Amino acid sequence: MTEDELTQAALDYHAKPKPGKLAIAVTKPFTTYSELSLAYSPGVAAPVRAIAANPDDAFRYTSKGNLVAVITDGTAVLGLGNTGALAGKPVMEGKAVLFKKFADVDVFDIEVDAENPQDFIDTVTRIAPTFGGINLEDIAAPHCFEIERALVERLDIPVFHDDQHGTAIIVAAGLLNALELQDKRIESARIVCLGAGAAGIASMNLLLALGARRENLLLVDRRGVIHRERENLDPTKAAFAIETPCRTLADALAESDVFIGVSGPNLVTAEMLKTMAPRPVVFALSNPDPEIRPEVALRVRSDLIMATGRSDYPNQVNNVLGFPYLFRGALDVRAKRINREMHIAAVQALRALAHEPVPSEVLNAYGKSDLAFGPGYIIPTPLDPRLIDYVPPAVAKAAVDSGVARAAYPAHYPQPPVDIHTPA
Amino acid sequence: MTEDELTQAALDYHAKPKPGKLAIAVTKPFTTYSELSLAYSPGVAAPVRAIAANPDDAFRYTSKGNLVAVITDGTAVLGLGNTGALAGKPVMEGKAVLFKKFADVDVFDIEVDAENPQDFIDTVTRIAPTFGGINLEDIAAPHCFEIERALVERLDIPVFHDDQHGTAIIVAAGLLNALELQDKRIESARIVCLGAGAAGIASMNLLLALGARRENLLLVDRRGVIHRERENLDPTKAAFAIETPCRTLADALAESDVFIGVSGPNLVTAEMLKTMAPRPVVFALSNPDPEIRPEVALRVRSDLIMATGRSDYPNQVNNVLGFPYLFRGALDVRAKRINREMHIAAVQALRALAHEPVPSEVLNAYGKSDLAFGPGYIIPTPLDPRLIDYVPPAVAKAAVDSGVARAAYPAHYPQPPVDIHTPA
Repeated sequence: MTEDELTQAALDYHAKPKPGKLAIAVTKPFTTYSELSLAYSPGVAAPVRAIAANPDDAFRYTSKGNLVAVITDGTAVLGLGNTGALAGKPVMEGKAVLFKKFADVDVFDIEVDAENPQDFIDTVTRIAPTFGGINLEDIAAPHCFEIERALVERLDIPVFHDDQHGTAIIVAAGLLNALELQDKRIESARIVCLGAGAAGIASMNLLLALGARRENLLLVDRRGVIHRERENLDPTKAAFAIETPCRTLADALAESDVFIGVSGPNLVTAEMLKTMAPRPVVFALSNPDPEIRPEVALRVRSDLIMATGRSDYPNQVNNVLGFPYLFRGALDVRAKRINREMHIAAVQALRALAHEPVPSEVLNAYGKSDLAFGPGYIIPTPLDPRLIDYVPPAVAKAAVDSGVARAAYPAHYPQPPVDIHTPA
Repeated sequence: MTEDELTQAALDYHAKPKPGKLAIAVTKPFTTYSELSLAYSPGVAAPVRAIAANPDDAFRYTSKGNLVAVITDGTAVLGLGNTGALAGKPVMEGKAVLFKKFADVDVFDIEVDAENPQDFIDTVTRIAPTFGGINLEDIAAPHCFEIERALVERLDIPVFHDDQHGTAIIVAAGLLNALELQDKRIESARIVCLGAGAAGIASMNLLLALGARRENLLLVDRRGVIHRERENLDPTKAAFAIETPCRTLADALAESDVFIGVSGPNLVTAEMLKTMAPRPVVFALSNPDPEIRPEVALRVRSDLIMATGRSDYPNQVNNVLGFPYLFRGALDVRAKRINREMHIAAVQALRALAHEPVPSEVLNAYGKSDLAFGPGYIIPTPLDPRLIDYVPPAVAKAAVDSGVARAAYPAHYPQPPVDIHTPA
């Protein structure tokens, strides 16, 4: 398909036969007068009274427990920037489709027209009783950090900014598997991250939690390497300001083991790649045009393991591997939040699944005759039906073990949880 | 069913097999990788760009145009008072069920935890881009008036407080038909309304718009008749303060033609009814226990026409006759608001439908052998499948004629609109 053809196909898909991608389904029988009087007046007074007496009963008598709000302020929609809240709606509806299809989580998309972060925070706080969880989406950095922090503090349901932690989890799973294949260790890997927005900052913080050393991390933004002498850094960037002589991306890449790009197209040259350490790992995640194209990169570095954000190259870093299953696990144990332990559990589950033999239905979905753990397959593919059996149990167990679950590990989950072999 | 049995049946209905009454349905094909890339990245960028360039395209490419928010602050849930936002959720989900089943309108229920009316107004304003319409629900008077007024002013989509206008429309339709049968005219009818909350105030205002004379209206609240000498009246009540010697409900009812009760159980006595004018009309709408029971009322006044809010007596005043169809009509012409002309169009459509012969499927649904326009049948029944053919076309036509429609009268509607014979 040409780009014009894709545009037209996408517009048609969204417009016909009816506008949009979502509708409401009524889950209870509703044809007779007596069912009407149970669903609505006078019967509905019974669950109202129960919830007024015991707020937890909302999880028993309403859809709250399986309902996530996907909420944006429209300040960073896809790569298109601040489009405004309304224009974010097709993306938020798309996210709802993914939540439903991959993990049977119901989603209301909510587009918030807020003038500032505080208005956004207040709005989300006030509508939160409606939901069992909040997925923040397409909110520009650095406001996204402040917004997420405030909401996590205020609310007793999971609040998850997918552009931060969703991306970080898939990056970490793929990267740890790539390092394993390259015979390197996260503790000693020199890692360069180009892009200091939501995805970059969150990925670096998760890698730190997984054993990376701060002194081995070089964060690079539009103005170059973030280092001790840089002035006017916001606090999230300042945490990565280390003592280093490196000033440019080229400086940073020399002798580095890992490059993670969450920035823009074609910012990395073949010359720069040549200077990286032996057996490097390159995640060029800018979409649709990566920081360097895989065919260029592999031409100069045959010892490379490479991932992109695209579905037409191997090793696609795609958030859909994460968020539906994280919320599935969190909702199923009524977690109060999605904490670091749950992020790491999802990373380990994704890593482990990539080590397993790939079933024929997945091969068929991708038109492949073979796919096995190795440089061309370091992370599971989005259409892998085993994700639901791997990730939610790991996340739910981590929630229970770390004390943020309000319900026990679910009886309908694998007992005991799938034993996730953690690769070295 | 005893009350305990109804309570248990309602709790079971809400809890099993899964909690709540709503889920999300994905309306577009989504099984292949290429469909994923249309529904989400990269294809979804096309509708985002279109809407960013032209906000009206949201009605073309997203679910907005068929999506109504049913929103409460939980301050007046059913007859239970201020239960808090969360406990209102079963009612709001129930409303969503009614919208979907009767008029195929999709609804997200939103429970807002707001400390004051201004916070509520700000919250609804900010999330409004998500929706094609706003149905306010179970918000206490007098705040509900201020809230609705502010939102109607701020937003360019219909904002409709069902407890006010929904109730008023059904009351007016039934009352005009009852007056026709009693050979009385609204212009000269002496009308007493007990209850000066959302439903009472809105009903009186709609009756004024339909020809009732202000000097013939007596509004009665907990403290008695609202008259010129009453002090500390809020502005909505003050508008009904007339010169009158009446002070009590009993004073007011003497020689009156119409009683409308939207107050509480058993506040009207048989003695009071005896003093009403010949051929009176009594709407005792307090639910589940009316202001006076029909069997008591009809014993003392055989010349009476009576309606209640209950399904087990004739002439049930039930809002479900209105709101699904009002929004259906408003959404289908993309009305900017639901104005008085549209309210009156709905009243006339409901009046007209009650004059038509009742089809056998409606008789069967209610286990009746006969039902015809008369004292025992002044308004259509909720399960009448002809409502969708009567009310939305009338409402849509009124929107177009009164200049609040942004789209033409729909091609798939009856052409020309069903000719609604307006009874005298």
